[in-house]
Amino acid sequence: MSDLNPPTFDARFRDQLVELMTWRRDVRRFRTDPVSDEQVETLLRLAMISPSVGNSQPWRFISVESRPLREIVRASFERCNADALNSYSDEQAEAYARLKLAGLNDAPVHLAVFCDLSPAAGHGLGRATMPEMLNYSVVTAISTLWLAARSYGLGIGWVSILDPVEITKALDVPPSWTLIAYLCVGYPVEEHSDPELVRHGWQDRIDLSACYFKR
Amino acid sequence: MSDLNPPTFDARFRDQLVELMTWRRDVRRFRTDPVSDEQVETLLRLAMISPSVGNSQPWRFISVESRPLREIVRASFERCNADALNSYSDEQAEAYARLKLAGLNDAPVHLAVFCDLSPAAGHGLGRATMPEMLNYSVVTAISTLWLAARSYGLGIGWVSILDPVEITKALDVPPSWTLIAYLCVGYPVEEHSDPELVRHGWQDRIDLSACYFKR
Repeated sequence: MSDLNPPTFDARFRDQLVELMTWRRDVRRFRTDPVSDEQVETLLRLAMISPSVGNSQPWRFISVESRPLREIVRASFERCNADALNSYSDEQAEAYARLKLAGLNDAPVHLAVFCDLSPAAGHGLGRATMPEMLNYSVVTAISTLWLAARSYGLGIGWVSILDPVEITKALDVPPSWTLIAYLCVGYPVEEHSDPELVRHGWQDRIDLSACYFKR
Repeated sequence: MSDLNPPTFDARFRDQLVELMTWRRDVRRFRTDPVSDEQVETLLRLAMISPSVGNSQPWRFISVESRPLREIVRASFERCNADALNSYSDEQAEAYARLKLAGLNDAPVHLAVFCDLSPAAGHGLGRATMPEMLNYSVVTAISTLWLAARSYGLGIGWVSILDPVEITKALDVPPSWTLIAYLCVGYPVEEHSDPELVRHGWQDRIDLSACYFKR
């Protein structure tokens, strides 16, 4: 029952894959150069190869293009970002204020990514005891999208500093949809192999030994 | 401030990346051949390159090795799977009963993947309004792990038909950890470019047009 020619991947490909993963990055500084609809659709088709619980494919992508809708998103980010700044004190507040946390003004493509919590597909398989598997399936698609984008020289920034209820309402989606991510997509101004938050002294990488245990 | 030599990825690499994504698959039929500790650590180090909210790196991996613990997991799967079977009627129950939904008996490596909901790293950045970003960060690491594994010829099966509370209790983890995934890892018996649930008539793939909209 297996396909006839499963591929094998060699060390050269694996080295490039590690480079791709390393240079994937969360991007917040975008060039305004347009990204074609065709390119976006190519990326979304790749994202849809991702695994999903019961093959439910609950990912729903909305390209946010209208100026008034983008304005609502930007206002939500600014309000939530100001609230976050106020929650830190002293040096941490200063450090936070110096960070650039979204690329909403420059990124040519905005994708709001939702999870349909009542998808027709999948017939409920695999999510009776862990219903959050639907949300997680959408995250695997975002993860695939991110790597696919970078392979074309594109960057993605995941903006989570906003009010998901407000964004969901503004985008007028079916009631069973819940917002998973708001993504900025475009060509990055600069490229890095280390996370912006490492480079700007917010949070270093931690070691495997702090994350891996045996039982 | 940008690194000196950002890589470019050519069409040949992208073709191989699409092959990797296509043949990634959720695997449920494993050979019992061992997978070395060193190999597992290589994969986990790659997983840890994944993006995380505020660079919080909340992923925690437990290699479940003891026989009694694996027995608890298997029993939990069998009970939850029987409950699921009972929830379907007629043809769907027959179809469900024919599916192989876990590779717990044969997979040499079992990884329980948790999210630390109170990570020291990240200082709360990016998750005030969307606290679920921590869970999602762990899912991006699992997604990376999955692709990395396949690049070495290894398969992963994500088992979600179990009681997460029971598994968490059995593994005796800190109270701030929540179970995201239970993964079987090993060499697959057979390889496929289409999902098992498509091949066995449970759920076909859906089209981009059903998932992509503009506003």
